[in-house]
Amino acid sequence: VKTNIPPRIIYKPAGLRILDQRVLPRKIKYISAENAHKTALAIKGMVLRGAPLIGCTAAYGYLLGIRKSKFRTRGELSLAMRKISSVLTNSRPTAIALFYAVERMNKSILKFTGGNRKERLTLRERNSIISILENEAKKMEREDITANYMISKFGASLLEKNSVILTHCNAGALATMGMGTAVGIITYASKKGKISHVYVSETRPYLQGARLTAWELYREKVPSTIICDNMAGYLMKNRKIDAVIVGADRIAANGDTANKIGTYQLSVLAKYHKIPFYVAAPTSTIDYNLPSGKEIKIEQRNSKEIIYINGSLITHKNASAIHPAFDITPRKLITAIITESRVFRKPNAEKLFQLKKFPATR
Amino acid sequence: VKTNIPPRIIYKPAGLRILDQRVLPRKIKYISAENAHKTALAIKGMVLRGAPLIGCTAAYGYLLGIRKSKFRTRGELSLAMRKISSVLTNSRPTAIALFYAVERMNKSILKFTGGNRKERLTLRERNSIISILENEAKKMEREDITANYMISKFGASLLEKNSVILTHCNAGALATMGMGTAVGIITYASKKGKISHVYVSETRPYLQGARLTAWELYREKVPSTIICDNMAGYLMKNRKIDAVIVGADRIAANGDTANKIGTYQLSVLAKYHKIPFYVAAPTSTIDYNLPSGKEIKIEQRNSKEIIYINGSLITHKNASAIHPAFDITPRKLITAIITESRVFRKPNAEKLFQLKKFPATR
Repeated sequence: VKTNIPPRIIYKPAGLRILDQRVLPRKIKYISAENAHKTALAIKGMVLRGAPLIGCTAAYGYLLGIRKSKFRTRGELSLAMRKISSVLTNSRPTAIALFYAVERMNKSILKFTGGNRKERLTLRERNSIISILENEAKKMEREDITANYMISKFGASLLEKNSVILTHCNAGALATMGMGTAVGIITYASKKGKISHVYVSETRPYLQGARLTAWELYREKVPSTIICDNMAGYLMKNRKIDAVIVGADRIAANGDTANKIGTYQLSVLAKYHKIPFYVAAPTSTIDYNLPSGKEIKIEQRNSKEIIYINGSLITHKNASAIHPAFDITPRKLITAIITESRVFRKPNAEKLFQLKKFPATR
Repeated sequence: VKTNIPPRIIYKPAGLRILDQRVLPRKIKYISAENAHKTALAIKGMVLRGAPLIGCTAAYGYLLGIRKSKFRTRGELSLAMRKISSVLTNSRPTAIALFYAVERMNKSILKFTGGNRKERLTLRERNSIISILENEAKKMEREDITANYMISKFGASLLEKNSVILTHCNAGALATMGMGTAVGIITYASKKGKISHVYVSETRPYLQGARLTAWELYREKVPSTIICDNMAGYLMKNRKIDAVIVGADRIAANGDTANKIGTYQLSVLAKYHKIPFYVAAPTSTIDYNLPSGKEIKIEQRNSKEIIYINGSLITHKNASAIHPAFDITPRKLITAIITESRVFRKPNAEKLFQLKKFPATR
């Protein structure tokens, strides 16, 4: 369960230290976020990324927000909670983990907002609020670490010996609090002798594949090779690829999945080449409020992130570009969704709702 | 037929001036190549690229090679021809236009090598050799310009009004001596009011789409938007795309096609989304010696071209990458091959060999 990756976030009552993933692997550098607003800015600016990590970071950001807030009455606490929730959830729209984390934090201290709004909260109550939130954030962190481990184990059991895997973006330790989801499966399976090689698509524009996943695999001693995003088809046609494994930012109730831009076309290519396509994500990624992928909001980011690389313009100065940060993979292109509770082969609404009705005990 | 693109090569007896496409569109800069060796280095180093342009440049490089050669006898001429041919054809292995051009240049002066190898060539014969080669190179240039125009016209006739096109890499004026092949079709169709928008995939690692095609389209006043290579599937699923049009570096006798890496996966995606997939290339791109795409040699370039962008490493320092410069699109994924002679719908060996038996008169 231990990884060779530096901690993604370090919580102290004074503030969060966040590993700056924008400069990895060139530099290992931490930035500080001492309140909810700064935490939200770090999420928005992609200092950190990866759905489960965004969720846990938002939980700590929420805790810091309340810690730094000067609320005195129940009404003021309620207002602070609403403001902090809004700041955090407005950072990035696609990862459900963010909304889930904020909702859990809100719920955990909801009882303190009831009754007379003008009534002052005692120091004891204030301390209790902080302590509840701290426990909730730490619990979410532990849950993520456990979920990563279970996903890795379940996922590895689906692979044959000497498998060659293609993964996209980064669904590794750097996207979570634990060993990762898609990359967790790969490193776990590698220790069981099941991985002969991993191909990593570089994942433009932020190059999370080349910068983060290739680095993680190197540190975990799993042999890997980087490809450009336009080489996946060539690879599937000309070399042995046994499975594609990716993460997910949100899963609709029917199994349609949002993940990093480029995932959808990998699923089409995998189908065409008859290669299993696996999505690895904790059950907290499932959004039961959305009947299908059509309803998942896709974040459209600034096109400058496409047409500038390291500050230099790659085209003419009047050029335009689109920058959808995610895309939707329909369930029919997904061989299985691997969660910490169970593996959903040929995912559909019926199977996913079973889980909601009978959630596995943690 | 006139383009708004600076000349790609300028031939003078003292040497070639070659537009340095590696720094476009940031700088318009020419480099000099005064002999065959320097011309070959420019081709290998991607100062220029694009199959038809490589062919014409090689023809002028050959001419310069003979011009600078100190041959005196028929035997020495023959040796010079062999050396120059070898230097040029060893620059890049995939574009057939390169081999075709060198072969034509060789053939045009073959008669001077016959007979007694020790016999000295007169000054008159030497002048005649230079003049024949100059005419042959200029003829190839004119043929390419005409072929571009005919391809553009034929291709445009296949498009409906207000078409939205996706193109990859650069098969434009910058890849040819004329108005381009795939981009020629787009600019020609645009003048006929048939184009509402063009999407250009950036084409890692050399970004020919973002750097060259987007710039050409801007100069030709065709509205365009850049996408990362991993957004093509998203685009086909979520926006109106009426056709994919690309160029070709070599076409096997059965219609299988080699083109810039990433073309193959676009053809698979186009098939899945029921979008016509067109390949535009002059008939000189057809290699009748190769029964299928399996026999086309794919150039494997240095992986440093992947893991460094503008001199900075995008991954950890021990990372490895693959860099196939081209891939093969099988004929069954090609809706039509558009040549200057005719349009081959559902291309196959029978149709392509018809052209060899009954070539269109130029």
